[in-house]
Amino acid sequence: MPFFAAKMEILYYIDLLGTVVFAISGALTASAKKLDFFGISAVAFITALGGGTLRDVLLGSTPVGWISQVDYLLMIVLGISVALLFRKYVQKLRRTFFLFDTIGIAVFTVLGLQKALSAGVSPVICIMMGMISAVFGGVIRDVVCNEIPLIFRKEFYAVTCILGGCLYFILLKLGIVGELNVIISCASIVVIRILAVRYKWRMPSF
Amino acid sequence: MPFFAAKMEILYYIDLLGTVVFAISGALTASAKKLDFFGISAVAFITALGGGTLRDVLLGSTPVGWISQVDYLLMIVLGISVALLFRKYVQKLRRTFFLFDTIGIAVFTVLGLQKALSAGVSPVICIMMGMISAVFGGVIRDVVCNEIPLIFRKEFYAVTCILGGCLYFILLKLGIVGELNVIISCASIVVIRILAVRYKWRMPSF
Amino acid sequence: MPFFAAKMEILYYIDLLGTVVFAISGALTASAKKLDFFGISAVAFITALGGGTLRDVLLGSTPVGWISQVDYLLMIVLGISVALLFRKYVQKLRRTFFLFDTIGIAVFTVLGLQKALSAGVSPVICIMMGMISAVFGGVIRDVVCNEIPLIFRKEFYAVTCILGGCLYFILLKLGIVGELNVIISCASIVVIRILAVRYKWRMPSF
Repeated sequence: MPFFAAKMEILYYIDLLGTVVFAISGALTASAKKLDFFGISAVAFITALGGGTLRDVLLGSTPVGWISQVDYLLMIVLGISVALLFRKYVQKLRRTFFLFDTIGIAVFTVLGLQKALSAGVSPVICIMMGMISAVFGGVIRDVVCNEIPLIFRKEFYAVTCILGGCLYFILLKLGIVGELNVIISCASIVVIRILAVRYKWRMPSF
Repeated sequence: MPFFAAKMEILYYIDLLGTVVFAISGALTASAKKLDFFGISAVAFITALGGGTLRDVLLGSTPVGWISQVDYLLMIVLGISVALLFRKYVQKLRRTFFLFDTIGIAVFTVLGLQKALSAGVSPVICIMMGMISAVFGGVIRDVVCNEIPLIFRKEFYAVTCILGGCLYFILLKLGIVGELNVIISCASIVVIRILAVRYKWRMPSF
Repeated sequence: MPFFAAKMEILYYIDLLGTVVFAISGALTASAKKLDFFGISAVAFITALGGGTLRDVLLGSTPVGWISQVDYLLMIVLGISVALLFRKYVQKLRRTFFLFDTIGIAVFTVLGLQKALSAGVSPVICIMMGMISAVFGGVIRDVVCNEIPLIFRKEFYAVTCILGGCLYFILLKLGIVGELNVIISCASIVVIRILAVRYKWRMPSF
């Protein structure tokens, strides 16, 4: 089925793109913290791979994914290079960067959820694992950089992933499976995130 | 053996109660740090499940426990709700809360130790794993909230769990097994902790 | 082959010595942060075992190594005792301490790399795992002590391990295997580190 295969391939490429964008974001954060080249590289790795690594460790599907997938490591090297060589340019492209980051968390969420599903765990855990895949790289990045995690404070970010994960299972119940489900779920995360930023949605604090 | 079964069930319910109390404690800490609703929920989860998760990962008994035990997740949702809805009330009940927290670490220690024992590791490691189950949720909570862990600074807290764990193995040597051992070990942790707080016992610093 | 066996034994003893030195370094850091005796012990454990633990968890070779190797726990107890009893003396011996620490990271790198190699992963991952074994104990120590990791900021430290790991595989390609390779790779890490400190080599920052 070449059509299906082509779509699977698109998902794979978006996953790689997400990895590059997450690595760039990690490298820029580390650079702002005055880390040296090793620190910048380490934080870029942690940001891009931390979420998926935590998911794999919790599920017990070790060795963790990136150990056998050298593509992802190459994407991080690319992300670090882009961040350091074109820093000023990247910082100006905030809007493009935001869009890629959003597409990145959407794909990370759905692929993470599917990995959990194939490990045979319950839907609630799958949704948590999808969210963890997408956002805990950033959480670990902030903890390592000695900050309280940004998304714990004022971003409608993790909840977007949780809503997208819920939609995935609602669609599954409705009989919408495979690629179509993936596309709708990812698109919903992108749309909710754009609306959340556009209209400054916030989680309540107490 | 209904008597035995009834006691096992009590242990299970105390474990659930400990989870609620740890979640409340995490939610209150997060709330004091001005985190939003997602941050509060994440920190409540980390506080309640972090210790047991670390134990399971170190022992290699993955998927980690809570992935297949939805009861514990429900207890955390309950804990978060109680913390946010009855915050002022909960903060006034410091003494009750302290007692529940103490019973919680006692049960977490002994159940954690038993889980390690059933994984076939040595007594010293079992005692460490019991202590890690009980107190490392709080350690990870503090690290994520950008604080040096409280129990590393001035609490006679982890040592209480270690002493209770040692007693468990002494009793085992003396032929006191099963529920009776569990009850005595848990009770000793509760008593030592109450004495430690009452008489302001401190670990030495240098 | 007694000659070979004797050399293997030396590697084992250097590994134990490295563990003592790392525990001392952790205990001194924790002591400077005004932690109490439990905090000092916990940070000493984390510093000495954190890197190898992270490597084992990522590779999925759990239970993690120290759970079945009580020797390493004893070395940490020894390290904590030395740090607390002879603190002033240890702090004066900076040069000796630096040399032991350097030999420690060299052996941790090569043994970590070999453990990854025996798990069947690619050379790039082996080199990463060697470096993680050697330096991430210190990274976790700094994160727990609420500091941005020192080696992310201004030390030519992790890169030394990476260079030593690369040399290991170059020698392997050249047919230099076994003990001879281990000795040359370890020695190169020690020499590079001494040169790096002597001539104040720094990683670039941006």
